[in-house]
Amino acid sequence: MFKFNITILGSNSAIPTTERNPTSQLLNYNDHLFMIDCGEGTQVSLRRMHVHFQKINHIFISHLHGDHFFGLIGLISSMHLLGRTKKLTIYGPPELNDIIDLQLRVSLTELQYPLLFHPTQAETPRLLFENEFLTVTSFPVLHRIPTTGFLFREKPGECRIRKEVIEMLNIPVHEIGSIKRGADFRDAKGKLHTNASLTAEPTPLRTYAYCADTAYFEDIIPIVKGVDLLYHETTFMQDKAANAAEKFHSTTREAATIALKAGVKKLLIGHYSARYDDLNPLLEEARAVFPESELAVEGVKFQLGY
Amino acid sequence: MFKFNITILGSNSAIPTTERNPTSQLLNYNDHLFMIDCGEGTQVSLRRMHVHFQKINHIFISHLHGDHFFGLIGLISSMHLLGRTKKLTIYGPPELNDIIDLQLRVSLTELQYPLLFHPTQAETPRLLFENEFLTVTSFPVLHRIPTTGFLFREKPGECRIRKEVIEMLNIPVHEIGSIKRGADFRDAKGKLHTNASLTAEPTPLRTYAYCADTAYFEDIIPIVKGVDLLYHETTFMQDKAANAAEKFHSTTREAATIALKAGVKKLLIGHYSARYDDLNPLLEEARAVFPESELAVEGVKFQLGY
Repeated sequence: MFKFNITILGSNSAIPTTERNPTSQLLNYNDHLFMIDCGEGTQVSLRRMHVHFQKINHIFISHLHGDHFFGLIGLISSMHLLGRTKKLTIYGPPELNDIIDLQLRVSLTELQYPLLFHPTQAETPRLLFENEFLTVTSFPVLHRIPTTGFLFREKPGECRIRKEVIEMLNIPVHEIGSIKRGADFRDAKGKLHTNASLTAEPTPLRTYAYCADTAYFEDIIPIVKGVDLLYHETTFMQDKAANAAEKFHSTTREAATIALKAGVKKLLIGHYSARYDDLNPLLEEARAVFPESELAVEGVKFQLGY
Repeated sequence: MFKFNITILGSNSAIPTTERNPTSQLLNYNDHLFMIDCGEGTQVSLRRMHVHFQKINHIFISHLHGDHFFGLIGLISSMHLLGRTKKLTIYGPPELNDIIDLQLRVSLTELQYPLLFHPTQAETPRLLFENEFLTVTSFPVLHRIPTTGFLFREKPGECRIRKEVIEMLNIPVHEIGSIKRGADFRDAKGKLHTNASLTAEPTPLRTYAYCADTAYFEDIIPIVKGVDLLYHETTFMQDKAANAAEKFHSTTREAATIALKAGVKKLLIGHYSARYDDLNPLLEEARAVFPESELAVEGVKFQLGY
């Protein structure tokens, strides 16, 4: 099973504090690094956690509130100053491209590496990225300005042939490839073995969904249904439900209700208001609705499927 | 004598590290706070140093390389989110206004406080700011893109009447104001006392000059002549003089030579390349030319005129 984990680089909403950074996450799939959102100070968090940030090739920006992207231009610049030559692809709202371009232009910076910008839209789900192992899809969430969630989903791989079967039936090496791709096998005595009898159950496909910032929004439930890990913002505790609604944010119980209704395996809450020093009361409120809840905290890594 | 000091918020060039932030300084004159440059992470440095950042009313940006302004939009946003209503004035290259406007526009942020933008130009010295106590002037330095230095200068105040003279000559209270403003005094016996004989030497006027980023540039010498404190960038040690020249930066010895030729009282070096872990060799090189040199280091405060 390939590595698939999420590291929290920043967990705060709106305002950075000395303890918590604005939003950013690093997703590691089989040593391919993907970044989700990039608040101010993210590049320093990466250094503090000894992440080699030139290994990041894809950055996904959910929306254009500063706490989700003010660190991006600094990261782009540092990658350039440190000699990057490898392509970087950024996915985000169209105006983000203007913001990057303007700042590079006025500083007369000509990046030494190709920077590709892929505009997102927040009307319908869209496939943004696909490689051999993984797809990344954006989907609409509900916020004051156009905002997308992101769904990372493993792709079905080849079947796995059971080792003991290879030995027992004496399957020749040149047949193994086609069996992996779904073929049956006829042995030396002419007996047919179905593909299902030769192969193991496929590894379950792991999924990670990121929903921030968003108000309580049931439209996302079918999209995040059954994911291994759901990150859902919880800017406020339940007693501030009116503040949350007014600002298109969510409360602990709202996030946990989405997790419950979508039947996810685990919920990760984050994007905390700077008013909360102690986060345990938020966790307790979420767990009262959905026991498999965890706190997103700077530096903590969450493994998928272990 | 009014408070007049400089606190170093960031001392690094180009790239932030876990130890050093990109450039920013805070100038406190009589509890009026002025900021000079604002690299990424400056707002967190202010919090770490327990500076109440809503007290900053004037921000001066030298030029549009990211390590001098990428933290500005985050600071502007946080001031807004924390309920500022007081005017903030920003002085910087004209394009900085576009960068701020664009980022506020796409996030649908309507600031709750007046944000005034005062464009600078890098051709000739210009008076940017003046109040009862202080003037701030910009002046051209020599960098790859238009860049200004800043000169903070105390204004001559009223004369101080010597206390013993008031008692000896029995000067009536209603005469004191005019003597402070330069008048002579005729005593009860009709004898004229000149203003000079009544008043003390005026307090020397203190001055701070900020020069970053700049190549070695003798044109600044007459402008910074005799200042109490000169901040001059020293991105490189002397053995990297070719790198410095190529990138329009200065070396330790070049900064110290400007300080020497301008006859300043003290030199503060900073804007160090991230390649230097230990800064003492830079200080030694500067002191070999100009002994009254000091290192700009995060959190250190320099008093003027004590």
